[in-house]
Amino acid sequence: MYRTHTCGELRLENANETVCLSGWVQKIRNLGAMTFIDLRDRYGITQLVVEESAPEEIRKQVAGLGREFVIQVTGKVLERASKNNKIPTGDIEILIEKINVLSRSEIPPFTIEDHTDGGDELRMKYRYLDLRRTAVRKNLELRHRMAHLVRNYLDSYHFMEVETPVLIKSTPEGARDFVVPSRMNQGQFYALPQSPQTFKQLLMVAGFDRYYQIVKCFRDEDLRADRQPEFTQIDCEMSFVEREDVLNIFEGMIRHLFKEVRGIDLPALPRMTWHDAMEYYGSDKPDIRFGMRFVNLTALAQTKDFAVFNSAEYVGAICVPGCANYTRKQLDELTEFVKRPQVGAKGLVYVKYNEDGTFKSSVDKFYTADDLQAWATAAEAKPGDLLLLLSGQKMKTLPQLCELRLEMGNRLGLRDKDVFKPLWVVDFPLLEWDEETQRYYAMHHPFTSPKLEDVDKMESDPGAVRAEAYDMVINGVEVGGGSIRIHDSELQQRMFRCLGFTEEQAEKQFGFLMNAFKYGAPPHGGIAFGFDRLVSMFAGLDSIRDTIAFPKNNSGRDVMLDSPSEISEEQLKELGIKLG
Amino acid sequence: MYRTHTCGELRLENANETVCLSGWVQKIRNLGAMTFIDLRDRYGITQLVVEESAPEEIRKQVAGLGREFVIQVTGKVLERASKNNKIPTGDIEILIEKINVLSRSEIPPFTIEDHTDGGDELRMKYRYLDLRRTAVRKNLELRHRMAHLVRNYLDSYHFMEVETPVLIKSTPEGARDFVVPSRMNQGQFYALPQSPQTFKQLLMVAGFDRYYQIVKCFRDEDLRADRQPEFTQIDCEMSFVEREDVLNIFEGMIRHLFKEVRGIDLPALPRMTWHDAMEYYGSDKPDIRFGMRFVNLTALAQTKDFAVFNSAEYVGAICVPGCANYTRKQLDELTEFVKRPQVGAKGLVYVKYNEDGTFKSSVDKFYTADDLQAWATAAEAKPGDLLLLLSGQKMKTLPQLCELRLEMGNRLGLRDKDVFKPLWVVDFPLLEWDEETQRYYAMHHPFTSPKLEDVDKMESDPGAVRAEAYDMVINGVEVGGGSIRIHDSELQQRMFRCLGFTEEQAEKQFGFLMNAFKYGAPPHGGIAFGFDRLVSMFAGLDSIRDTIAFPKNNSGRDVMLDSPSEISEEQLKELGIKLG
Repeated sequence: MYRTHTCGELRLENANETVCLSGWVQKIRNLGAMTFIDLRDRYGITQLVVEESAPEEIRKQVAGLGREFVIQVTGKVLERASKNNKIPTGDIEILIEKINVLSRSEIPPFTIEDHTDGGDELRMKYRYLDLRRTAVRKNLELRHRMAHLVRNYLDSYHFMEVETPVLIKSTPEGARDFVVPSRMNQGQFYALPQSPQTFKQLLMVAGFDRYYQIVKCFRDEDLRADRQPEFTQIDCEMSFVEREDVLNIFEGMIRHLFKEVRGIDLPALPRMTWHDAMEYYGSDKPDIRFGMRFVNLTALAQTKDFAVFNSAEYVGAICVPGCANYTRKQLDELTEFVKRPQVGAKGLVYVKYNEDGTFKSSVDKFYTADDLQAWATAAEAKPGDLLLLLSGQKMKTLPQLCELRLEMGNRLGLRDKDVFKPLWVVDFPLLEWDEETQRYYAMHHPFTSPKLEDVDKMESDPGAVRAEAYDMVINGVEVGGGSIRIHDSELQQRMFRCLGFTEEQAEKQFGFLMNAFKYGAPPHGGIAFGFDRLVSMFAGLDSIRDTIAFPKNNSGRDVMLDSPSEISEEQLKELGIKLG
Repeated sequence: MYRTHTCGELRLENANETVCLSGWVQKIRNLGAMTFIDLRDRYGITQLVVEESAPEEIRKQVAGLGREFVIQVTGKVLERASKNNKIPTGDIEILIEKINVLSRSEIPPFTIEDHTDGGDELRMKYRYLDLRRTAVRKNLELRHRMAHLVRNYLDSYHFMEVETPVLIKSTPEGARDFVVPSRMNQGQFYALPQSPQTFKQLLMVAGFDRYYQIVKCFRDEDLRADRQPEFTQIDCEMSFVEREDVLNIFEGMIRHLFKEVRGIDLPALPRMTWHDAMEYYGSDKPDIRFGMRFVNLTALAQTKDFAVFNSAEYVGAICVPGCANYTRKQLDELTEFVKRPQVGAKGLVYVKYNEDGTFKSSVDKFYTADDLQAWATAAEAKPGDLLLLLSGQKMKTLPQLCELRLEMGNRLGLRDKDVFKPLWVVDFPLLEWDEETQRYYAMHHPFTSPKLEDVDKMESDPGAVRAEAYDMVINGVEVGGGSIRIHDSELQQRMFRCLGFTEEQAEKQFGFLMNAFKYGAPPHGGIAFGFDRLVSMFAGLDSIRDTIAFPKNNSGRDVMLDSPSEISEEQLKELGIKLG
């Protein structure tokens, strides 16, 4: 037996017990008369003590210890003379009677502390040491807890966990697939799933009624800062449901998580149409922790001789509270900000609504105080506020104004990570026009149902058709999305036609699904949450990487394993492939 | 809203309520005066009724229905005149007031009944219809329930669920890997994990203490009847444990499952050494639901002039209770059985110990009644029993005798699927000699710890070294296996040398693990259960296939998806590979 207790377990009431602990040496402090050792495991830290009067053998052993050695100690629990109220075991210490080195350690390449001296690359290479740091391990513990809460919640609503296959079929639609050459069927390939979408729909056709899975998905995309080639979804589907049924169940799930994990009682989630989200926040994932909703000043701004506004399709403003006193330098910074290529605006117009009721703007030579007063009134600005205006093509200006609004939110400290404002964004467009390929793409995926009242417009005005689709957005991040699905093979074929599929293409790629719909498909719908992102939000992390035990870097490499790697000629030959 | 209740929910106390149900038409019986419809969903079947006096529109709609149509009905709950006590809703029926066809169905290619008329191939192709059959869906429901019970059990013992990566590194040791070409690192490949073995060990090095995962694993093997290229493990690992700690936790898990799922209170699991399992059952996965343990008759049988026995390394017998009256024909059948290539014996010797105390054997001309009496005594045979003997090279004869024993168990009805006799098989050999390649292989895997008392023999007598390995066996099936691991990088290197790895090979393949052991590795061990097989055992199935929602056939194909399939030239080019 290696231990009677963990390092997080002992309290004052254990005083005078003889116990046995195992763990890692976190710290050694030799004070001459006494040596203190902090012993660490997943559950906590316990202080060990060796007195000068201890048997020589023990003192020798202790002298030979180093950071991260794994030891087993037996000793008596003593009440501490000076207690440490920062840790739950801070009332006691263990007087070592016996010590056993289970495993030695070389000096670790970085310190195993919450604030480590190790750089990113080094910590990724020695990920197993990085995971020892409490700050990192806590995220994985949170992930476990959230998965557990989600499973129990869904089980209580009769969702069945069903494992769908990982070796599936490649479909050109959507993102790029990872593929797996088949040895038994040479020249053919499996694909790894980008999501279990078609399988969960087939499970509904099969009458499974309520399905869920916490499941790995794969996308062979060029990795941006916060993307991983493999990621995890909470994937769900329900039969005989309308949109409200789905929203209710999963609003309940999120509220349950916030209650259990963060102790927060969320109010009912507001709903916002995609149209309003774009119009007032310039984004389909609005951060509603703070105001500064967009105000459309196009009409009011096109009354004078200012060519920039007059030639613009759209002039929009945000009203920044209490910032009329911004300096020249601050305003220049904001102009620089909106002109960055990532934002892409040409310039910025400001209007200071001074505390004394006067106005000062960058367009004073074009507009009178009355003009500016009209803008301020439209924007519900109060003396002391600052109006910031952008203009141009509407669908380009809205996202620019969104970036500016978020920047102002950051500057004013309005984006507190411990404040959570989730909402549903609904009524997305069904289709998105792509200029480059001159065709429509499904905004969510080709199985999303149009709103029944819009079906008539699928051929005549496809861009105006709204979908029965919904996203859950928290603090400007899309954490989940889904839709009511098409369950009628004729409507599905119509959808494929809208997307420019020939009948052969549709049949080849999705024939099994359309075939399934011929045998009695129930109305159904579902949702998928990005689990990595959801955990990172609850953990207050900026990146999903530290919610993942063994993440890959931005080149898709696992630097710890040194993977991907070359394989042998023999393996290639067996698979019937050659390097190109 | 599509329903107020499910099809399994209504009872007599709901009588006179107006309800709304949705589901599939299982059956229609038109009795003239009345038409009855069985409406089915995942939760049950509810009888609908339409009377001759119903409005014409409803009668017309009902006349147009067919099997597997999806309908929504509104109506009043009535007490049935003739109740059906075979189903929970059998006391009531719904008098249809309104009917809405949600989805029509073509005539399904096979009947959706527990005993269907559909052949294997057809049901695989229309798997979504096969899954509608209650007999199949029940297995998936059981799988969900067992996964849920396992997770909650392990959570209660502080196991953390950690997701390990799916895109990992190919290692030549072990079975063949599935590989995934990397687009971003051309000429290089990821591999899909055969198990998360190294990752779970790294998690122990990382101090995670207790890990579990219900996880997909992949092996590119030629598929035997009951293998799948992707399969699921309950994968677990613990730190600061000895063998007993691991066995206790997982014995508890299995007992918990039997209690909750089958209502069975299992006694403590017996332990059997690998040596005894081989000696007395001829298998490392003995079926101990019945006796007939092997009796070694080598010494007693080599006393006379019978060359077959005298030249044999081993003569072994089983005593089959009450079968002394076997006919010539039955005995010939058994001889044929053992001579089948799958068994491979040259012949069979029998000794009938007749009820009257006399003996009749196939070797009467070599042995006296006293000789046979001595055999019978050694085998603890009683009058009326039948001795069956096989002989030859010991390690070949034991498995043959095992097959014969299992066959006799089947014939005597001693292998009841509703009786469960789990046990632990322990003390496996560490290494297995392979004649063909003239080297040792790890019997479990290269990370398994030798028993400490045997470590000295690793170089001098490797074949005699026992491992700290254990398998859980139920009814002749290995459902789980694991070991205490090596946690010392020097011992690990010694193990690699025993396996004939050069230092470079070991470094290249497992360098990251040996490196990890240099920074304080805790003693650790674990286990993995084959979840598909465990479910099939609880479900009383012979195959794992029907515990899997979308299985592949014996050629590794998904006939529903028609996968694997060809991919485009463009995809190949992007990946930098060519077909060979």
